Amino acid sequence: MSSRIPIIHRRALLSGAAVLVAVGLPRIAIAEQADPLPSWNDTAPKQAIRTFVESVTRDGGHDFVPPAQRIAVFDNDGTLWGEQPMYFQLAFAIDRIKALAASHPEWKETQPYKAALEDDTKALAASGNKGIMEILAATHAGVTTEAFADTVAEWLQTARHPRFQQPYDKLVYRPQLELLAYLRANGFKTFIVSGGGVEFMRVFAERAYGIPPEQVVGSSIFTTLQIDAEGKPQLIKQPKIEFVDDGPGKPVGINRFIGRRPILAFGNSDGDQQMLEWTSAGDAPRLAALLHHTDAEREWAYDRASHVGKLDKALEEARLRGWTVVDMKRDWKRVFAFEPKGAL
Amino acid sequence: MSSRIPIIHRRALLSGAAVLVAVGLPRIAIAEQADPLPSWNDTAPKQAIRTFVESVTRDGGHDFVPPAQRIAVFDNDGTLWGEQPMYFQLAFAIDRIKALAASHPEWKETQPYKAALEDDTKALAASGNKGIMEILAATHAGVTTEAFADTVAEWLQTARHPRFQQPYDKLVYRPQLELLAYLRANGFKTFIVSGGGVEFMRVFAERAYGIPPEQVVGSSIFTTLQIDAEGKPQLIKQPKIEFVDDGPGKPVGINRFIGRRPILAFGNSDGDQQMLEWTSAGDAPRLAALLHHTDAEREWAYDRASHVGKLDKALEEARLRGWTVVDMKRDWKRVFAFEPKGAL
Repeated sequence: MSSRIPIIHRRALLSGAAVLVAVGLPRIAIAEQADPLPSWNDTAPKQAIRTFVESVTRDGGHDFVPPAQRIAVFDNDGTLWGEQPMYFQLAFAIDRIKALAASHPEWKETQPYKAALEDDTKALAASGNKGIMEILAATHAGVTTEAFADTVAEWLQTARHPRFQQPYDKLVYRPQLELLAYLRANGFKTFIVSGGGVEFMRVFAERAYGIPPEQVVGSSIFTTLQIDAEGKPQLIKQPKIEFVDDGPGKPVGINRFIGRRPILAFGNSDGDQQMLEWTSAGDAPRLAALLHHTDAEREWAYDRASHVGKLDKALEEARLRGWTVVDMKRDWKRVFAFEPKGAL
Repeated sequence: MSSRIPIIHRRALLSGAAVLVAVGLPRIAIAEQADPLPSWNDTAPKQAIRTFVESVTRDGGHDFVPPAQRIAVFDNDGTLWGEQPMYFQLAFAIDRIKALAASHPEWKETQPYKAALEDDTKALAASGNKGIMEILAATHAGVTTEAFADTVAEWLQTARHPRFQQPYDKLVYRPQLELLAYLRANGFKTFIVSGGGVEFMRVFAERAYGIPPEQVVGSSIFTTLQIDAEGKPQLIKQPKIEFVDDGPGKPVGINRFIGRRPILAFGNSDGDQQMLEWTSAGDAPRLAALLHHTDAEREWAYDRASHVGKLDKALEEARLRGWTVVDMKRDWKRVFAFEPKGAL
């Protein structure tokens, strides 16, 4: 038998920090736990988050919630990544219209395609729901689910955000990545519940956020099963909306896909209001939070008057109900992982 | 510092068996691994399952599949629990009709309610889709999602299966519980993908199978968000079918809810055929399995001619494609956890 000194070190990700744990011996040297949320300033929201997580994970405590019930839901656009100057999925759709235009010469003279080809977002908006549905059909349907995912993956590799000149999936918020990791290290299961297209988000959610496809809830179009020429089954995306996971659709989507009420919900717009209400209406301790975009210098500043990510009624309700409002400028030490060099 | 001999034992659930692992030292005493599938006879299906699991988990091996992609899907009725003499959810619906009949005196003279009240399954079947929809509306809709779950939970506590005189959720198959645990111990994520109602199954799936609500995919009716008299949001179940998770609906449901192709699929009827085809059509190593009910003594024997769980075309395809067919009589040492005492 060895006479080696019996200190066995095991790295354990506890509270988001690597901690040295002495196994099977009196704990003689526990390193001070590092801050699991280093990109957050020590302001009220960070305190509220830490207090909440500590209270629901304190074994035997009054507010203890078993791990299986620690469901956390996050909106995506404007909550986990940026959404200006337009939803990134719309940027993808416009780029797809451009890529497909050579096979559709008539698009140069036909709305809403003409607007997309000319980056005329005003004309595109004027085309209304009918126009958006046509763009959606041309760019998201008529292909297999796998071909669509490949197209999104390729776009994420090649497209650049107009302001920051970064791939779109680099515009994820570093403080939120820390929060997701902190929650998971404390036994939470993290979900996306977003108005965005579920098959669009699933392409990058696992890599960008550590959220696997089966924990992404979003809007969808129908798919149908078809057998191809070689006898292989294929799922084909159809130009028909199946589910809109926005506003009152969010509690419905949570019920349908997750099947239990979250104890933490994080959004940034009026489209998240019902999700926060639904989460807050449960019996157990709950945390409802909104990200308020207040930082035109590092990101953007917008709320009540914005066409994208409008935050108006939900902000009122947050004040009435005591929801946590994260002020990006005040509460976040950093916004992105990269150092912004874009024109401001 | 202690001079204790540095053997640190840690219990680890590996392959379903508690194994002593010497941490940080040469492994000097690994106990022989217990059989993770003790209710399975040592026939071909058990060998196929073990070979498959070992091959996809062998780090560096040719067939290795990363844990995140180890998705296993199981049908429920007839695959994880019984389905005779009628789908258990239909037994629930009939019991609900009886429980609600006092408030609906007209049901005594009106089909399909009369058939349900008189246990006349022939007349019930004759009422067709329209009749089934009426029963569904009367027993599954018009209530909050939470009230419905409470009703199912109460029914599971009080109702008894007519043959075995056991609560319905005791009619789960012990070999399958072992298989689910074995898969999870090997990094698989286990899902139900069933034609049954998702909100019905979620009530017992976690307790009975260790499968949490967010990993249950099933058929559904619509829900809508309403604000009650106290200002609280409620989800109300509506008498309108949203999704039928059966046949070609299973690959569609897998794509919608899970978002990636399983590597293992287990069913028992023609309603599972497309799920097995979809699973088998992937690139990675796959296991597709069917449970063949061949045991009239311990359970039931039925296949091509059965109205419940008809197994005909899928059985042919299993033979053509080399899918694993589990013959209950031959391959299972035990069927249930309880010792059957029911009339045979």
